[in-house]
Amino acid sequence: MTRYKIIIEYIGTHFVGFQKQKNGLAIQEVIETAIYNFSRENVSIFASGRTDTGVHAFGQVAHFDLHKEYDAFAVKKAINHFLKPHLIAIIECEKVSPDFHARFSSIERSYLYRIINRSAPLIIDKNLAWHISEKLDVKKMQEGASFITGTHDFTSFRATQCQAKSPLKTINSINIEQDGVDIKIYVSARSFLHHMVRNIVGVLMLVGVGKWTPKDIQACLIKRDRKHAGMTAPAHGLYFLKADY
Amino acid sequence: MTRYKIIIEYIGTHFVGFQKQKNGLAIQEVIETAIYNFSRENVSIFASGRTDTGVHAFGQVAHFDLHKEYDAFAVKKAINHFLKPHLIAIIECEKVSPDFHARFSSIERSYLYRIINRSAPLIIDKNLAWHISEKLDVKKMQEGASFITGTHDFTSFRATQCQAKSPLKTINSINIEQDGVDIKIYVSARSFLHHMVRNIVGVLMLVGVGKWTPKDIQACLIKRDRKHAGMTAPAHGLYFLKADY
Repeated sequence: MTRYKIIIEYIGTHFVGFQKQKNGLAIQEVIETAIYNFSRENVSIFASGRTDTGVHAFGQVAHFDLHKEYDAFAVKKAINHFLKPHLIAIIECEKVSPDFHARFSSIERSYLYRIINRSAPLIIDKNLAWHISEKLDVKKMQEGASFITGTHDFTSFRATQCQAKSPLKTINSINIEQDGVDIKIYVSARSFLHHMVRNIVGVLMLVGVGKWTPKDIQACLIKRDRKHAGMTAPAHGLYFLKADY
Repeated sequence: MTRYKIIIEYIGTHFVGFQKQKNGLAIQEVIETAIYNFSRENVSIFASGRTDTGVHAFGQVAHFDLHKEYDAFAVKKAINHFLKPHLIAIIECEKVSPDFHARFSSIERSYLYRIINRSAPLIIDKNLAWHISEKLDVKKMQEGASFITGTHDFTSFRATQCQAKSPLKTINSINIEQDGVDIKIYVSARSFLHHMVRNIVGVLMLVGVGKWTPKDIQACLIKRDRKHAGMTAPAHGLYFLKADY
């Protein structure tokens, strides 16, 4: 058996998410079928992190095993051939040791959340960023984000259907970059609760438009209650950026 | 009469270009119809520069006149309402003096050409950048570009169907930025010949992959013959960025 690590880019708009579901086509399924089509081997791929319906990826990481050993570049090319016309591509492929696990070996995951802050509807970034018309104060958003970094009980930022045993998580960093109307929020942690990044962006938006003060985010964390923590930012602004090992 | 200046963003993929044509839907037509739908006035819009089939814009500029005077923000909102579901939006709208002309008053136009330099097919940037697999040497491309800036006879870089009286043009600047696989070529001039930016990018690519030396670009200019100047880079990597007045 040879283990292959792949880095995947996709537009999540027309998929039910990364993981296989009964209600529609999943990214995982499309990739597994493409691998079968070139190798005639039935494989299961394991991803670094699941992404929800509509969430995109620049650098999702996954691994799978094949009985036959191929050149890694040839595997990448072959999978990409069979992935067409889906908006999914393998950016990189390498052979890794059998003890590498895309999910369990990862020491940090990074997400990017994109906002376009202007009144006109989105065109080039349609379905690829959250469109917010109301003017955002990015400096205040960054100040609010400082209360979220570090180790906290993130009950307020966790989807009610989240299955993680503990609500304790450590956010390593939140960096917000602004270039004109283009706002990019980078969030890194070893692992996340369900909807955690989108729920964080939801309160950062409240701070940005002035409905909350930056310190209200701290109060919200302390309440440990999802009901007091604003909206879940839409899926189509979120990107799985990378996983580090 | 009140003159309105608009800044337009669009994805050119499904249009025959900016200017009205007999063979399909043009961006100009869609905007004129949207203006009619809110104002019940038949107008012609005048753009800073035409763009070909498949070419995009972040900041195309145009003007038009209406008998009735409206609030500029309301005009923007109304046109955007009637532009749906087309991938065209008015980013800004302002009232300007009757002697402003989007085409004749412009002192500089800027284009962006986007290349993604990697082996994997494009996903997030599909139809929005030129996909080049062969490794590009951006430093050499910038060196080659230095022979193009300034005033030259651009016969070698002009489409055979170009109708301009003189092949003499002045390129104010060409700047090439690289961020990983993402390469951005910025070109500015008062005006351009037909296909000029795409023909320039075509030879920069030849230099980037090592088929030409940077100095070959100078030789090509001197030849004043389109046959010796390589390919026309594809339309879908090109963006009308802005017009200055």
